[in-house]
Amino acid sequence: MSADPRSGGQRRRDTEHRLTHDIDVWVASASADGAPYLVPLSFDWDGEALLVATPTDSPTGRNLAATRNRSAGAGPHPRRVHDRGRSRGPRDRRAAAAAGDRFAARTGFDPRGHPVPLIPHPPRRIQACREVNELPHRELMRDGRWSV
Amino acid sequence: MSADPRSGGQRRRDTEHRLTHDIDVWVASASADGAPYLVPLSFDWDGEALLVATPTDSPTGRNLAATRNRSAGAGPHPRRVHDRGRSRGPRDRRAAAAAGDRFAARTGFDPRGHPVPLIPHPPRRIQACREVNELPHRELMRDGRWSV
Repeated sequence: MSADPRSGGQRRRDTEHRLTHDIDVWVASASADGAPYLVPLSFDWDGEALLVATPTDSPTGRNLAATRNRSAGAGPHPRRVHDRGRSRGPRDRRAAAAAGDRFAARTGFDPRGHPVPLIPHPPRRIQACREVNELPHRELMRDGRWSV
Repeated sequence: MSADPRSGGQRRRDTEHRLTHDIDVWVASASADGAPYLVPLSFDWDGEALLVATPTDSPTGRNLAATRNRSAGAGPHPRRVHDRGRSRGPRDRRAAAAAGDRFAARTGFDPRGHPVPLIPHPPRRIQACREVNELPHRELMRDGRWSV
């Protein structure tokens, strides 16, 4: 349990591998008066944003509609990744159709037959850390830009 | 990817195994004005509460001091568990010493030499779900009591 710290490039590659191959992500949102809600949701990654299928009438759906802030995390120790960001409005119809195809192929759930919009969540800040020796350089993205 | 749903008893045993053996848990908190914050933290389980070491001056520490609400989740698909609850005040000195010993042995981090109180987080509601066929019976604890 004392691997050398990875290079910045390796941490970014590991993070993008996780974004491209994982299926579930923990999504934290909060009500306007500060009650957090954490739930595992299926997601896709289009290279710029997490696409998360969130029922409109779920706690997460209501929180995101009210505040748009969210924080997401994936992975057990030792390759965990977490980020913060804000949700965007839904895509136009053509982009949404392509995103729906990809999402259904990846996760096995097709949100298009349900009241479950596929909401883009572009990350603003990404941290990835394997062991304590990576803590000082855990930040891989800041203000929406990769720093490595 | 279509195992039969587990019995309630089995889901509770799997959940308690995870609480007893995992080292990290995702902890979501929120500021009083609704900004969620998600971070992986080391934890211990004393049979009644998650014990989480949270630096006083971290975002999570400040959020918990302000609102005490938190939501926690552990585990990738297919044995994920998540719960909601509120933090309690620290234990008395003797209980805190015993908890510190256990925490250091489990996680390799001894919080007692740092400004990192070991805060009990008794769960109020626990859900555990492996596949869609377990969704209807995913709730294992409600209002602080096991229902299975």
